[in-house]
Amino acid sequence: MSTPIEKTGEKTEKNRHVILTSHPPAGGSKPLPVHWGAATAAERGPLVATLSDPSKRNVIGAHAGAYALYRALAIASGKLSPIHVPDLSNTSPAERIGPHPQWADAQKIVSLDPWGHMVAEVYADKIAAGWDIRPTIAVTKAHINMPELRDVIASGVLKPDGNVLQDNGDVRVTKIAIEPVWWLPGVAARFGIDEQALRRGLFEHTAGTFPELITRPDLKVFLPPIGGMTVYCMGDIAAITDPKRRLAVRVHDECNGSDVFGSDICTCRPYLVHGIEVCIQTAQEGGAGLIIYNRKEGRALGEVTKFLVYNARKRQVGGDRAATYFERTECVAGVQDMRFQEMMPDVLSWLGITRIDKFVSMSDMKFEPIIQAGIQVIERVAIPDERIPADARVEMDAKKAAGYFTPDTVPDAEELKQAKGRKLDE
Amino acid sequence: MSTPIEKTGEKTEKNRHVILTSHPPAGGSKPLPVHWGAATAAERGPLVATLSDPSKRNVIGAHAGAYALYRALAIASGKLSPIHVPDLSNTSPAERIGPHPQWADAQKIVSLDPWGHMVAEVYADKIAAGWDIRPTIAVTKAHINMPELRDVIASGVLKPDGNVLQDNGDVRVTKIAIEPVWWLPGVAARFGIDEQALRRGLFEHTAGTFPELITRPDLKVFLPPIGGMTVYCMGDIAAITDPKRRLAVRVHDECNGSDVFGSDICTCRPYLVHGIEVCIQTAQEGGAGLIIYNRKEGRALGEVTKFLVYNARKRQVGGDRAATYFERTECVAGVQDMRFQEMMPDVLSWLGITRIDKFVSMSDMKFEPIIQAGIQVIERVAIPDERIPADARVEMDAKKAAGYFTPDTVPDAEELKQAKGRKLDE
Repeated sequence: MSTPIEKTGEKTEKNRHVILTSHPPAGGSKPLPVHWGAATAAERGPLVATLSDPSKRNVIGAHAGAYALYRALAIASGKLSPIHVPDLSNTSPAERIGPHPQWADAQKIVSLDPWGHMVAEVYADKIAAGWDIRPTIAVTKAHINMPELRDVIASGVLKPDGNVLQDNGDVRVTKIAIEPVWWLPGVAARFGIDEQALRRGLFEHTAGTFPELITRPDLKVFLPPIGGMTVYCMGDIAAITDPKRRLAVRVHDECNGSDVFGSDICTCRPYLVHGIEVCIQTAQEGGAGLIIYNRKEGRALGEVTKFLVYNARKRQVGGDRAATYFERTECVAGVQDMRFQEMMPDVLSWLGITRIDKFVSMSDMKFEPIIQAGIQVIERVAIPDERIPADARVEMDAKKAAGYFTPDTVPDAEELKQAKGRKLDE
Repeated sequence: MSTPIEKTGEKTEKNRHVILTSHPPAGGSKPLPVHWGAATAAERGPLVATLSDPSKRNVIGAHAGAYALYRALAIASGKLSPIHVPDLSNTSPAERIGPHPQWADAQKIVSLDPWGHMVAEVYADKIAAGWDIRPTIAVTKAHINMPELRDVIASGVLKPDGNVLQDNGDVRVTKIAIEPVWWLPGVAARFGIDEQALRRGLFEHTAGTFPELITRPDLKVFLPPIGGMTVYCMGDIAAITDPKRRLAVRVHDECNGSDVFGSDICTCRPYLVHGIEVCIQTAQEGGAGLIIYNRKEGRALGEVTKFLVYNARKRQVGGDRAATYFERTECVAGVQDMRFQEMMPDVLSWLGITRIDKFVSMSDMKFEPIIQAGIQVIERVAIPDERIPADARVEMDAKKAAGYFTPDTVPDAEELKQAKGRKLDE
């Protein structure tokens, strides 16, 4: 099926027909096979998402997650050459990560490419031969500085050591950016559905994104157009997998309003800062600390839904109270949450983690999949009570009542009915 | 073209065929027309993106931008009913915005739906009749609190007034979340390309997202799977369009590493905080201040590319220096920038803005499109020199040399060659 188009962004290819979707190749020109979960990069094979030579593609979708559309716009508007291939000189990881035993287990990691940071090394021969193989993970180093930590230093709780934590409040970190790469049979298994149901659902309920989900059952790897994640590591990377050293971890899902602007309706930034504090302490004691930052704004419902829910919470008869906290989200979105923590432990497995000494999160939705993934959790660390903003009491009570981890008393039914949140106009 | 699928997430519809893409309806059951730029909501007509009744759809794509995929996953995994329709009780905007004259000019606003926050009001009859019409904009109120502002209060530069700025550093804001809604003929016009070239480019260079871009030339509105934006308004909303009162604006593009974690390689968070400070002052003087926060991480190249570029900058022979700042990004990404500020002024036009008194940005890439959109800019406000982190001098020098606004001396060729950034391991 094709449609003639008169003019394209590529001036040399006028009147080319548009191929609406590809089908499995019949003859000999099959793309390189992908053996997900193979023990070595060579056996696994590179993931090829090139747009210049469709016959070489062995994945569905394009690189850069949700930013793929901007790349398409850059080509359509004539600003980027469609055949540009990245020059990867000097871009290799600033720290060596893996391979770890978990990489050789197809079911252990299904939502990122374990070799994604090493492609320039492990597929060097193919890249030299002109193949367009791109990193989906990048590892760099940075200094971060959060004003709250300067207060913690001034109070004497954190002490600068000139290495992890400096006098001016700078924290030395290794930063890792990770794009989503889904191995569809493994993602389906995590949800207990069959692969065809997953493919069909993803295609139909996005209003028709990527027909290859249907027409190319031979392609098992999908680069979804969603946000990825960032890992911030404090301390020695080697400590992460050293059974003799301790590891602190916070898994944090993006909340722009709190993380950046300090909105007081939730505990997101205060808990993030506390997590970094625990990570610094653990690193200073010879261990390591990790913040996993997932781009899943508003429980992956997006910010428009989140703000609609805020209005509904604050305007409802009886005021903003814990008893109706989850209900208001469900009325608007149909569910309480779409973050799908089932895939979240993959990054921990990718880092080789088998034990977390301090898990800085009260969420059962995060805790359970980590245990399911075979990772031991020694201690759970709640947000200190004095760090909870006044307007965030509604959220905190609701979560404790719903079974989140807390060392405190769980609020009773009477308390959950009390309006503790501000009204909309206050 | 269709493919039989044995099992789907919807248990009642086994063995249904998959429709790979739709085509313009031949007969009488045409979807509701969209007259983009019509003066009233009724004349413009609602945007219908329902997935339950495809014959009613008059747009390409799904709601929630890049979060649409999570919704599909929720349905595929059986957690969300495919026919759920949002209950919009109590969700209406916390402040009235518009209509403004710009809404009636099809070319003035092309990348968001000006009626997106008002659908429950302006299409109430249709919604009551069972149509699935959803908001693409939500308006709420919040208190934000950034620790840096408490320092500015302590220094006496900002004075709490008990209204905009409170003693504890809380800032009262109106927050607006906006999802992208593209009117394709208008987007194409912004880039000086024809609509077919745009449609084809978006389809092909995302590796085949949304065949309807090709097969449904009758559908002119597209909900792209990318991030949206958030507007933070300080002061009286009515001041935004009052010619007698002053308006401060900062247009800020997401930089998670600095905005959240305070990474010192760029000026993003310090400049954002300065922008908020200017907004508060302007609001305290009776005007209004706006922060426009766009989800365009790493110049819309994404964070993996950004970190690869950091490594290349810090490892190159000669060290991290302004002279090669843009070049390193171009080597990896093929372009310096993919933010496409051509569409950015739409939100300003949507808010009815015709004059900005203080524009808190040095970027020419942002300034020029705002002028092109017919908005007057009275004064440009640079980041105060003492707020620039040491490692961010490379970026600042490079931008000044490239023509960014600065009240200071532009660095000369000799200065641009100096390595001012840290090495990777420091």
